[in-house]
Amino acid sequence: MSERSIGIGLMGLGVIAGQVARVLADKADDLAARVGCPVVLRRIKVLPEDLERPRAKELPAALFTTDADEFFSEPGIDIVVEAIGGERPAYEYLHRALTSGKHAVTSNKEVIAKHGTELLALAQKHGVGLLYEASVGGGIPLIAPFKHDLAGNEITGIFAIINGTTNYILSRMAREGLDFAAVLREAQKLGYAETNPENDVAGYDARYKLAILASLAFRMKVVPEDIYCEGITRLTGRDFRYASELGFAIKLLAIAKRAGGAIEARVHPVFLPEESFLAKVDGVYNCVQVEGDLVGRVLFIGEGAGPSATSSAVVADIIAAARKIVLGIGSLSIWRPVSSKRLKPMDEIQTQYYVRLAAADRPGVLAQIATVFGNNKISIASALQPESDDVTRMAEIVIMTHPAREKAMQQALKELAGLKVVNEISNCIRVEDIEGGQP
Amino acid sequence: MSERSIGIGLMGLGVIAGQVARVLADKADDLAARVGCPVVLRRIKVLPEDLERPRAKELPAALFTTDADEFFSEPGIDIVVEAIGGERPAYEYLHRALTSGKHAVTSNKEVIAKHGTELLALAQKHGVGLLYEASVGGGIPLIAPFKHDLAGNEITGIFAIINGTTNYILSRMAREGLDFAAVLREAQKLGYAETNPENDVAGYDARYKLAILASLAFRMKVVPEDIYCEGITRLTGRDFRYASELGFAIKLLAIAKRAGGAIEARVHPVFLPEESFLAKVDGVYNCVQVEGDLVGRVLFIGEGAGPSATSSAVVADIIAAARKIVLGIGSLSIWRPVSSKRLKPMDEIQTQYYVRLAAADRPGVLAQIATVFGNNKISIASALQPESDDVTRMAEIVIMTHPAREKAMQQALKELAGLKVVNEISNCIRVEDIEGGQP
Repeated sequence: MSERSIGIGLMGLGVIAGQVARVLADKADDLAARVGCPVVLRRIKVLPEDLERPRAKELPAALFTTDADEFFSEPGIDIVVEAIGGERPAYEYLHRALTSGKHAVTSNKEVIAKHGTELLALAQKHGVGLLYEASVGGGIPLIAPFKHDLAGNEITGIFAIINGTTNYILSRMAREGLDFAAVLREAQKLGYAETNPENDVAGYDARYKLAILASLAFRMKVVPEDIYCEGITRLTGRDFRYASELGFAIKLLAIAKRAGGAIEARVHPVFLPEESFLAKVDGVYNCVQVEGDLVGRVLFIGEGAGPSATSSAVVADIIAAARKIVLGIGSLSIWRPVSSKRLKPMDEIQTQYYVRLAAADRPGVLAQIATVFGNNKISIASALQPESDDVTRMAEIVIMTHPAREKAMQQALKELAGLKVVNEISNCIRVEDIEGGQP
Repeated sequence: MSERSIGIGLMGLGVIAGQVARVLADKADDLAARVGCPVVLRRIKVLPEDLERPRAKELPAALFTTDADEFFSEPGIDIVVEAIGGERPAYEYLHRALTSGKHAVTSNKEVIAKHGTELLALAQKHGVGLLYEASVGGGIPLIAPFKHDLAGNEITGIFAIINGTTNYILSRMAREGLDFAAVLREAQKLGYAETNPENDVAGYDARYKLAILASLAFRMKVVPEDIYCEGITRLTGRDFRYASELGFAIKLLAIAKRAGGAIEARVHPVFLPEESFLAKVDGVYNCVQVEGDLVGRVLFIGEGAGPSATSSAVVADIIAAARKIVLGIGSLSIWRPVSSKRLKPMDEIQTQYYVRLAAADRPGVLAQIATVFGNNKISIASALQPESDDVTRMAEIVIMTHPAREKAMQQALKELAGLKVVNEISNCIRVEDIEGGQP
């Protein structure tokens, strides 16, 4: 074992940073054995208020600094671990770390999703690594498989449950027949959803993660704004009941797949065949199904968040970066967006649809509705009229379509909403015909 | 891109070797982009009879040689890909490749399970890599996670369905209520089981793979002979029926876990809670559940065999080895058995048991049976006496125990077999109380 040591500079003192600091201390011997020399926490950049946190008291006061300049001029730091979260100043800090020739490890999905391509190029320019395994799926290996293990494959599809909060909510809605708002309140009480849940329930968190995975898998620049995004707030207990009757589960899915020479990337609730693996992943678990031309289908499942699981990925990245420093090498994999593939506009995608609407309960209404679908060249696979209300004389109608164009579907929905006999389009959910069966 | 190229020497011309040769040709451009220089198939070592195979005709005749000396003296080979299978001469060839300073990639579970520790040390001595991702689980990333992604964890358990043939047979037995022999014949007809199925159905294949995973995960030398191994041939439709009634699935599980300072490693059929994820993995799919102190539970699922899926792992290893050659570096991870952990003798393990037996159908029999369990300090959790046969006056009795020592259980079974009222111990299956629920 050599005489040198690897110095870590930690940024932030939230739950993840706190856990990383703890692991670096508790597992010092094991890390040294794996890296080939000691790995030492040298400095922690915090905000003044962080110093009041209980976990600040667990660490030597001399480690802390509130001054970014002081932090970055510390000569003993080889690897900067950014665990602040949010876009700024995390982006500037990562930029500064790479520019000053330090390796960087981050769990920051927002920064990587928005600025990953630029920062990776910057890292390459300065001969250092930017590692971000912890940015997607907590401790589940998801970045490494695309960079290394599946590198021989042409990736054809990613179908992912990558937001634990929404999967917890959807699992409870499915099991208990409750509406979104009721389950959200429960989830907030239990700490599974934040006080301001928008980032999760509107799908933004999943969109960041999909941007990261799709960029890697298809070797193209996919930024969050390019990804169609629809949250789970409009789902009701009735949708789950119909889904179940029709043999489907409802999941918030992040999808990126090849389709006719272009790439589709979208986040929205889907009907999934209930016998598919993804449909069986409940609670806060994440599941990423990857399809490649050689490997077929592989699935990665685990807790997608939480300080302990996330620290597993951060520490793995620290070990990898430290090992490269010890061996005196740069990046193992060559990352650059080589693809000239086109991202398909949402209008052009093709899928099946579930449409639930409230209409007048009298003869001829279904014919009017069917005519709208027909005029837009959408074939109906099945139509259910399960309930009617004797007082309001309104009926609920559930329609499943054959594959159709999104543009045609949106036009049909507009026309349906304009029909006098239609009271309300209650919901429209895409049906993902994921290969579900097991051989 | 540099002027050099990386030369591949392929050993064997079975389905996997054939597929690897095809991928190297079809994906030459992509591989060159990922590695930084062309990757070229330079030579193929075959047996004389291989030259008659149709796939030999797809490749230039000049690539082939039947002479191992000629193969190993070819100066243009940087990486030897061993896809012969079986222990010998594959072991000698890998030894020779590493000794002559060539990187080696193999899909050979038998050689790695039996000689991995020695060959890895040899590779390290000669400054080259020995890569074997394809030896377990086809294209599912399983070796890399232990080496890199989960490197910060102390692994606490591995619970794996890693033999597709047996999982296919068990899935059909469960679904169709058939006995082992009937399903095996079907599986052989469909090509899911070999004409001589012993290697799969006796658990030997799973044992090789578990030896590889356990060695890596617990950083100790675990050889196949150290692993208790029991196959699936004694399972009957009745066992599946009782399992289902009691809320369990039956799977052939490869288990390696920490238990009281030692490591347990064993392959045998188990009762698994039917709500656990492993219980839901049917058909030829493999599923490896890994538990670590930081990451919690992660699961890896995919097709565990087949030329295409296996070639995905082989090609990933070729890329990794080639990249190291281009960068001029040795092994990234430091592998050595650092553990002084003890492998627990089977006698000492503790688990629950399902026991099915045929006994005389008359008062007092259950009391005699219960006394045997009691004398061996085994608590009975439940006893069922579901059926009796009026003609033979024999009853079937199904007993589920609380956790007990294997040694006590074996003693109890011996005593039960000696009871006059007991006609036959029909089966005894361990119950693995895997944490099944999803949060």
